[in-house]
Amino acid sequence: MKRVGVVGGGQLARMMIPAAVNLGIDIRVFAESENSSATLAARVVGNYRSQQEVSAFSSDLDVLTFDHEHVPTDVLIAVRDQGVVVSPSPEALTLTHNKIVMRHKLADIGVPQPRWSVAGESRSRDESLSAVGGFPCVAKKPIGGYDGKGVRVITSWDQIGDWLDDGDVLLEEKVPFVRELGLLSARSESGEWVPWLPVETRQLDGVCAEVIAPAPGLSDQDVAESDFLARSIADSIGVVGVLAVEVFQNDDGRLLVNELAMRPHNSGHIFTELSVTSQFEQHLRAVADLPLGSPAFTANAAVMVNLFGEIPEDSKREAWRAVPEAKIHDYGKEPRDGRKVGHISVVGSDADKVYARAIEARSFLSPR
Amino acid sequence: MKRVGVVGGGQLARMMIPAAVNLGIDIRVFAESENSSATLAARVVGNYRSQQEVSAFSSDLDVLTFDHEHVPTDVLIAVRDQGVVVSPSPEALTLTHNKIVMRHKLADIGVPQPRWSVAGESRSRDESLSAVGGFPCVAKKPIGGYDGKGVRVITSWDQIGDWLDDGDVLLEEKVPFVRELGLLSARSESGEWVPWLPVETRQLDGVCAEVIAPAPGLSDQDVAESDFLARSIADSIGVVGVLAVEVFQNDDGRLLVNELAMRPHNSGHIFTELSVTSQFEQHLRAVADLPLGSPAFTANAAVMVNLFGEIPEDSKREAWRAVPEAKIHDYGKEPRDGRKVGHISVVGSDADKVYARAIEARSFLSPR
Repeated sequence: MKRVGVVGGGQLARMMIPAAVNLGIDIRVFAESENSSATLAARVVGNYRSQQEVSAFSSDLDVLTFDHEHVPTDVLIAVRDQGVVVSPSPEALTLTHNKIVMRHKLADIGVPQPRWSVAGESRSRDESLSAVGGFPCVAKKPIGGYDGKGVRVITSWDQIGDWLDDGDVLLEEKVPFVRELGLLSARSESGEWVPWLPVETRQLDGVCAEVIAPAPGLSDQDVAESDFLARSIADSIGVVGVLAVEVFQNDDGRLLVNELAMRPHNSGHIFTELSVTSQFEQHLRAVADLPLGSPAFTANAAVMVNLFGEIPEDSKREAWRAVPEAKIHDYGKEPRDGRKVGHISVVGSDADKVYARAIEARSFLSPR
Repeated sequence: MKRVGVVGGGQLARMMIPAAVNLGIDIRVFAESENSSATLAARVVGNYRSQQEVSAFSSDLDVLTFDHEHVPTDVLIAVRDQGVVVSPSPEALTLTHNKIVMRHKLADIGVPQPRWSVAGESRSRDESLSAVGGFPCVAKKPIGGYDGKGVRVITSWDQIGDWLDDGDVLLEEKVPFVRELGLLSARSESGEWVPWLPVETRQLDGVCAEVIAPAPGLSDQDVAESDFLARSIADSIGVVGVLAVEVFQNDDGRLLVNELAMRPHNSGHIFTELSVTSQFEQHLRAVADLPLGSPAFTANAAVMVNLFGEIPEDSKREAWRAVPEAKIHDYGKEPRDGRKVGHISVVGSDADKVYARAIEARSFLSPR
């Protein structure tokens, strides 16, 4: 039985547990607190920035993988030097530490992305701004942003004065997209690469609120372009595990890469119910160097909606009674402003009905 | 978050873990050994016959439930007296401790069953034998049999001489059945009752080898009779949790009750991939008094095949490569003669193809 360690005790680690149980993988989690979402599999509660703690946790593992990208590169390299497989690799993960580094890498690979530039002390503001088509544009802190945090649409430099004091800021053109897609795929050590069909993600206040799978109205060309784009990135970076590529689709159908993640991703939760192989299972297969599973969909349509705030037990009951086919995933997390605490998936044959049922189930549980 | 304890660390407890994770239930297992199949959720390793140990395990639980029926009734009653919900109840579970007690109960309920009698010291052998139609008949040890153990088809008294020395033996007519069905359903505390469609189970040497879902050629009347039979038993016994009723179907279509289990059952494993709600999830919902989930099937056809003996890592890889849609469940158990160590599920639109693919996947893994 392969021993796979996961750094991070969030919902992504939590949702790897069912996949590990079914695959017969011995999963162990390095959690950041006693009450982590993945506490069932927690072996260690500690600080993932400590080389000593992560190395001790890894000492009897076959593979180390991740629920988040925040483990320092030198810690990862030290674990690899112990003889433990680190997947995705320290070199690949490092790209996700800094959005400016990522933009450079994507430019090297040659995949289409929004126009971008770097604003900072040593640069000309006019040049940075004109490179992204002027205001309004999107400003991103290069390090540490997520779920809308560290991202601002700006119309003047004042609006990021605080960030510019700290260092460089990534500027991106405000893309006139018609929708956003999630391109989920997995790549194994041996280079096997398996994509799911693209999904449509719908954001509210910069946070994913709904995912429609498959993305409505996908043409064969959309799928072919999506696959080419995702595979180019996966192969060039040498990703091992799930790769999530968030893209903008413009009104001419063109795809532009927004963000990357080298792990299971919120936009892929729906595959747990919709696909023969969930993203959590596929990630574990990839990092444990098992053959990848079938990404085929077992139904025509599916919708995932995220839950925020509290999930009161009574409301959950009401939702289940009203929509018995709803799969309500409760991450066991303390509610905090804007924090995802669960999600609902509904699968069926008719896309409109499925959407309506998911929204109905959500109406009991989430005010948004 | 409800705290649900499971006595027994076998594969049934193991497969409750994914369901608990998704539902947001805090699951804890009372295992019988350090290397149990459900070790991930094991909180205690101990002796389930010890009232003290089971009571200590139960002290901070909301609900106690089971992976097997072997916990002594007085231990269960003591736990209930502590204020912990025991589901199914000690009174219901007790019926499964002794096959003769169960036959009496089924006779009281009035559901059809094979002709049966009790052979023992104080009884007339001729009367016992003629009650079941003479030799050949089926002899069963009343206590402790499973998977073909404790069951013999006999043509003379000599063949159960050893058992008769120990006490009463259950005799049953050898039913000329055309097939065996598994009737799986769940009942909650509030009396809500939800069945899945009947499945066909195929035995080899008294052990379930294959399950076909739904059972081929089910008529509306078959389903109505199955539902009536299962619900009569569930309501009469007051089962809370999953109830598995194994029945013989005769060539005239008539159903006769063979065995009962008040827990998830091998014949229901296929619902994990086939149904909106797996039997493990439904069992947890029932015992935690949550609304029951939809038992709808998400595909036309599915097949489960059991695995025996070793599951070599390389063979698993070969099976996955050949049949990427196969879900191979590995219980993480040491192989022993005749012991189930895993199963494979395949789901699809065409029953014949699904069967062929399941058998193909099995060919890499199980010699039988």
